[in-house]
Amino acid sequence: MEMMAMDYHLCPKFQKTFTVLGKKWNGLILDVLLEGGAQRFSQLAEKIPAVSDRVLVERLKELEVEGLVTRKSLGPDSLRMEYCLTEKGQDLRTALLALRRWSENWIELTPAEMTEG
Amino acid sequence: MEMMAMDYHLCPKFQKTFTVLGKKWNGLILDVLLEGGAQRFSQLAEKIPAVSDRVLVERLKELEVEGLVTRKSLGPDSLRMEYCLTEKGQDLRTALLALRRWSENWIELTPAEMTEG
Repeated sequence: MEMMAMDYHLCPKFQKTFTVLGKKWNGLILDVLLEGGAQRFSQLAEKIPAVSDRVLVERLKELEVEGLVTRKSLGPDSLRMEYCLTEKGQDLRTALLALRRWSENWIELTPAEMTEG
Repeated sequence: MEMMAMDYHLCPKFQKTFTVLGKKWNGLILDVLLEGGAQRFSQLAEKIPAVSDRVLVERLKELEVEGLVTRKSLGPDSLRMEYCLTEKGQDLRTALLALRRWSENWIELTPAEMTEG
């Protein structure tokens, strides 16, 4: 019973983490924010050219809802937004670096997967 | 162009990693194999009571196809299988530990998510 109770509580948290990080582009967006610090929307869009502006806006909103990203207006023009990681987002650094290293070492892509980006 | 080419190749590998690890139960199965070493099917099933035998068999097969898990027959009875991590699977240790720690520190579950396990 002890073991069941442990699984029960551990698994959904672990699983939820993968659900958030596993959504297409989220890992890369977090990576770009980790590397580059606070950035405007246009800077993010330039660094991830394969994602459309519409999708990038959506993902940033979702990451904001999850408490990983925070958004700040740079002025009266509401389009000039700056994005950066929250403390919760920053704290993913070790895990994301380890996963990136692992992916580069071990993941092989099929030709179809290579063109999916 | 340099930047585009880099994104292009990095992102699908990183993304594929999350696709594999993010599938329900896979993170937990890998965790149990990391902690406990080579184990028979019945031992794995006992440690992850919330997952059905049918689903556990499926996931182990998928992890085998991904090269993360290896299976070895313990005798003429084909049902007595032992599972363990490959070198590729073992090499996930740092990343999985970091993600588990992060999940425990930061992820909050809604009542609905708590009962999903």
